[in-house]
Amino acid sequence: MNQQVRCYDCGNAYEVDARKRCECGEPLWFDTDSTDFEWPDAEWSDGMWRYADMLPVSDPVGIPPGTTPLVRADRLDEYAGCTLYVKNEAQNPTGSFKDRGTAVGVSHASETGYEWVGTVSHGNMALSTSAYAASAGLECTVFVPAETPPARLELIARHGPHIFRVEGDYGRLYEETLSLETDVAFVNSDTPLRVAGQKTVAYEILEQMQPTVPDAVVLPISSGGQASGVWKAIRELERADLIDDVPALYFVQAESCDPIATAYREGEPVVTPVTSEETIAVSIANSDPPSGTRALAAARDTDGAVISVPDDEIRDAMGQLSTKAGVSVEPSSAVSLAGIRRLSRSSAVETEDNVVAILTGSGYKERYDTEVRSRTIDLDDLERELATVVGR
Amino acid sequence: MNQQVRCYDCGNAYEVDARKRCECGEPLWFDTDSTDFEWPDAEWSDGMWRYADMLPVSDPVGIPPGTTPLVRADRLDEYAGCTLYVKNEAQNPTGSFKDRGTAVGVSHASETGYEWVGTVSHGNMALSTSAYAASAGLECTVFVPAETPPARLELIARHGPHIFRVEGDYGRLYEETLSLETDVAFVNSDTPLRVAGQKTVAYEILEQMQPTVPDAVVLPISSGGQASGVWKAIRELERADLIDDVPALYFVQAESCDPIATAYREGEPVVTPVTSEETIAVSIANSDPPSGTRALAAARDTDGAVISVPDDEIRDAMGQLSTKAGVSVEPSSAVSLAGIRRLSRSSAVETEDNVVAILTGSGYKERYDTEVRSRTIDLDDLERELATVVGR
Repeated sequence: MNQQVRCYDCGNAYEVDARKRCECGEPLWFDTDSTDFEWPDAEWSDGMWRYADMLPVSDPVGIPPGTTPLVRADRLDEYAGCTLYVKNEAQNPTGSFKDRGTAVGVSHASETGYEWVGTVSHGNMALSTSAYAASAGLECTVFVPAETPPARLELIARHGPHIFRVEGDYGRLYEETLSLETDVAFVNSDTPLRVAGQKTVAYEILEQMQPTVPDAVVLPISSGGQASGVWKAIRELERADLIDDVPALYFVQAESCDPIATAYREGEPVVTPVTSEETIAVSIANSDPPSGTRALAAARDTDGAVISVPDDEIRDAMGQLSTKAGVSVEPSSAVSLAGIRRLSRSSAVETEDNVVAILTGSGYKERYDTEVRSRTIDLDDLERELATVVGR
Repeated sequence: MNQQVRCYDCGNAYEVDARKRCECGEPLWFDTDSTDFEWPDAEWSDGMWRYADMLPVSDPVGIPPGTTPLVRADRLDEYAGCTLYVKNEAQNPTGSFKDRGTAVGVSHASETGYEWVGTVSHGNMALSTSAYAASAGLECTVFVPAETPPARLELIARHGPHIFRVEGDYGRLYEETLSLETDVAFVNSDTPLRVAGQKTVAYEILEQMQPTVPDAVVLPISSGGQASGVWKAIRELERADLIDDVPALYFVQAESCDPIATAYREGEPVVTPVTSEETIAVSIANSDPPSGTRALAAARDTDGAVISVPDDEIRDAMGQLSTKAGVSVEPSSAVSLAGIRRLSRSSAVETEDNVVAILTGSGYKERYDTEVRSRTIDLDDLERELATVVGR
């Protein structure tokens, strides 16, 4: 596969190892020629590597991410205000969508001779990167905010990386790691290798829905890496004549930290950093998203939007997902559903629209404040106790 | 599909709703005629429902379980003493292999008009059953030991079931719930519907490995439900001429609670209850397994065995899996690898043998005593700090 990276904005192209961001300041992605791409016959067992022709890797390492379920969530149609589908990225090997980008990044590092990989992360990406490094037999360094909870560090530590807890402006860390002279291959949030892997969630959604093209695809947004991958993928499928038109892309943030939604709302051409407040959507609280402007372009290009939702609506959506669709997601993932509800209330999305919500990460990795309704009984009273609840 | 259930031992057959266990005392399973079964062309998107022809369900509910990755874990070959593959059941919708059996049980209950489903569980099965009930819009009752940790209850509670914490002989609970006159469809550990679903992990392993047939398949064992499903499946595939011979089946328990291993070791024809001690392998600590004798038959029939391993070897295997194969599993799942190591040390398994370890459940749902190696640094010292670890 062509190993050139290109700027979506100014069009400059470079060799992949030369730069991770364009001279114009915008991020780069792999230049992939999709005109000959067809739906693969590949074994389901290869996961996302069924799309290997469109990915810059020859020798995948680790557990293959992807080929996650896409299901109708009809019990949520009323709440969502549309014909709802959910794409369950929580079922990836380390419990989040990050595995797609990581698998490409770490595989590429491994086959190009790196002995070290690294990332900058709130949690999911650190967990993912350390797991894939472990599979590949590579060393790993992860940089997390100093205040990262011990419980989250313990999960990451299982895979054996070197963990750096960083005090200081966490937003600067992204830039700093990518500009170091170092033998560590950093696979950060929106680097071309990661974005290439993130395309595959959209390939799958469109393959699973074919011949129907969803009216909208809705996903949480933080750095803009996944949003970029999804955008690139749908335009590639269109160019390959596998889909007739593209879904509208809607990206959702938490109100407390919504630089991209702000820029969209105010009609700005670029995203500028915001000051942010606390939110339960910790994984997507990125006040200076490196691919924010590219994501803004994606939303406008596809007649979508970027919106934000408050914490109480996020919590509500979490409960709806677990009690009506049987899936437990983290707060940052529930923003997809909370966002769809808002979009339907403003009629951006209609009852008969087919809308796919990407559920980015598993809630089972964390503890929440769920009310636990339980009764302690004696075995001898089983039948009687059961009858009080069931009737019989 | 034929809705008869039959006894593996005495051969008696019944209508599916008539009984869950044979009059002879042994458990029943669905009588499936596999002579016309072929590897399906079905979409990967259907998960385990690609084998719908062999399952007693017309109308599946919930997120489709299955089509989980099977990968070579070559970095563990030396530790395991064989050519090792791992089947990652942790990637099922609620993080364990239980979803396969649950999906069949809850779908069947739903399509036969039940409004309530239930189960008896240490944790994984309760989580699974409540999630699928939530998808199907059914009510759910789960019975767990009274001493179940709050953290485990909180996960289950997210899906909205009625939770009963039972004081008394937990082993009797299984029998009691199945003999109640009740409108609750109980989908316990080794009931025919659950076992039917559990077959699909073996269909997948053999489909993914074809044309190679693994020399052995190794899995943890508790009630004997999954063991029964795996046994039935491989004999069905053999009868369908899809495989030439069957893998040896090895089942592994924790030393502190190993009734089936004890019976195997002592050449007993049936399994009798044992007194048990504490073990970290909580999910498989079943001192009176309802399908223990059937599992014993399965091991002997396939020239396998049933063995047990101590807690320190389980912990060691957990660490090997997370640091060399990038997968975090619960203790009860790591027994597969610990068991394989033991088998290779006794030469039951050899270096060139292809051995598949089923990894039954995700470790990410729980907290362990991992040593967290981390360093707190200031952003300004990034380059220097990184160099001390990496060299450059």
